[in-house]
Amino acid sequence: MAYTFKMKKRVEFSETDMAGIVHFSNFFRYMEMTEHAFFRSLGYSVHAEIDGVNYGWPRVSVSCDYRKPVRFEDELEIELLIVEKKAKAIEYRFVLRQVLADSNPIVAIGTIVTVCVAMDGEDGMKSMPIPEALASLIEAAPAEVLRGGML
Amino acid sequence: MAYTFKMKKRVEFSETDMAGIVHFSNFFRYMEMTEHAFFRSLGYSVHAEIDGVNYGWPRVSVSCDYRKPVRFEDELEIELLIVEKKAKAIEYRFVLRQVLADSNPIVAIGTIVTVCVAMDGEDGMKSMPIPEALASLIEAAPAEVLRGGML
Amino acid sequence: MAYTFKMKKRVEFSETDMAGIVHFSNFFRYMEMTEHAFFRSLGYSVHAEIDGVNYGWPRVSVSCDYRKPVRFEDELEIELLIVEKKAKAIEYRFVLRQVLADSNPIVAIGTIVTVCVAMDGEDGMKSMPIPEALASLIEAAPAEVLRGGML
Amino acid sequence: MAYTFKMKKRVEFSETDMAGIVHFSNFFRYMEMTEHAFFRSLGYSVHAEIDGVNYGWPRVSVSCDYRKPVRFEDELEIELLIVEKKAKAIEYRFVLRQVLADSNPIVAIGTIVTVCVAMDGEDGMKSMPIPEALASLIEAAPAEVLRGGML
Repeated sequence: MAYTFKMKKRVEFSETDMAGIVHFSNFFRYMEMTEHAFFRSLGYSVHAEIDGVNYGWPRVSVSCDYRKPVRFEDELEIELLIVEKKAKAIEYRFVLRQVLADSNPIVAIGTIVTVCVAMDGEDGMKSMPIPEALASLIEAAPAEVLRGGML
Repeated sequence: MAYTFKMKKRVEFSETDMAGIVHFSNFFRYMEMTEHAFFRSLGYSVHAEIDGVNYGWPRVSVSCDYRKPVRFEDELEIELLIVEKKAKAIEYRFVLRQVLADSNPIVAIGTIVTVCVAMDGEDGMKSMPIPEALASLIEAAPAEVLRGGML
Repeated sequence: MAYTFKMKKRVEFSETDMAGIVHFSNFFRYMEMTEHAFFRSLGYSVHAEIDGVNYGWPRVSVSCDYRKPVRFEDELEIELLIVEKKAKAIEYRFVLRQVLADSNPIVAIGTIVTVCVAMDGEDGMKSMPIPEALASLIEAAPAEVLRGGML
Repeated sequence: MAYTFKMKKRVEFSETDMAGIVHFSNFFRYMEMTEHAFFRSLGYSVHAEIDGVNYGWPRVSVSCDYRKPVRFEDELEIELLIVEKKAKAIEYRFVLRQVLADSNPIVAIGTIVTVCVAMDGEDGMKSMPIPEALASLIEAAPAEVLRGGML
């Protein structure tokens, strides 16, 4: 069972703002990109039909602490950790580091709590148990990993 | 019948890039925003169900000429002109001006050619005649207006 | 002295995602847009030179709780409240409501903690006291307003 | 001397819109991403200081023809071709293909004309000859390559 995943990402020009740094809202796109690559690594798409149900994962709450500005062409490593797996929801933590020659300083730490829903058209999002085949592949990270992840 | 529409828009911080100006791709969002406000001014939504059909307007081709950089908090006036109305498609021109105290210099001129489709799920976009009730409300701008719009 | 500000915003097509709702990261753009309009309402720009110093406001931490999905062309009212004013930082709360005929349900509540810096080029962001002329115009919202804002 | 460059890109969720396809404005971000990777492949950054001058590349005109909608998690191959190299400007063509098991259909073809400028702060963008060290590395694609690129 998986509780962590890592990917790299280079900062694009269109992600910066006139202050010369990555716009703070884009860190959430980086987190989501990692979540979706994690799903793919398990053989799933985050937006998939399983047994005739169209699943989606709207967000319940998110947060981000910013430690260091990130700039155009910086290379980031984004680490996903599963903090909690509930019947119908997952809480992720994301640790974003800049990849440098001699160290990988943390630039931001974020969280996303997301709920599994069936999308039945119209206004319809109905919370659903995480499909068993997927739920059986993931688990919460051990407590010592979660404690260490912020250092 | 309508062939023109104008709206104002202030440049937001998140629309700028590290060069200190609006990212060039955002001009297409400004044009689209104006197209959608034009539809609303006619009592329509660009993404609507009419007689049981879900209509959409994917783009066939677009272009933009940039004359002057635009910056955070600049106020723009965006003018939409209908260049051509076909059975299943519309060609728009957009003239973007900066609103200044003493003049409104053109900052960019763009075009969007868009086709009316039925969205029937899956891969399904099928080109469709523009619904008559909508088509009857719009017409191409007179030639002399189109000639004058670029000055 | 001001501790609150409200503005309206209509959801644009390019702010939605394939789930048919506003992408969660865009709520932070809506909050920032309101912050900047608040600054303008006080006669300031969020990105300004004051007494020869180029000020900026990078984010320290942000969060958002999502209560209700928001869709294309929905009209939102965004309320800014100052939770705390420190020497060099401001904490905002944002309450986002959908404007409906008969009620204005809360769709999301967010926070932004932002620090006042001098931007002296290069890597240079140095935290600075909020310029007095600006600091003298704003104050934290009264406790009873902050308690009531989430209802 | 180089006249072409290719890279791959997977479509992210946040790049889609409520029509279920990539928002048309994002194709310009894909083109730009490829341009910047091309510069890096030559040992340059598109936003660099060379001999004390801060260079930038604002856009003069851009266009895109859309042939096929692109969806979440589709894999694209983006090919850059230099159509023309002038003293102070470059015209690029971009051919975007979807990477499938058995074929790579073209999904869009775009152009960007961009001018080399010195960014001297304030309103200052002044067109400049392309730095010789960079100009000597690139050339226009042969006519037969350009003719073939649209097939």
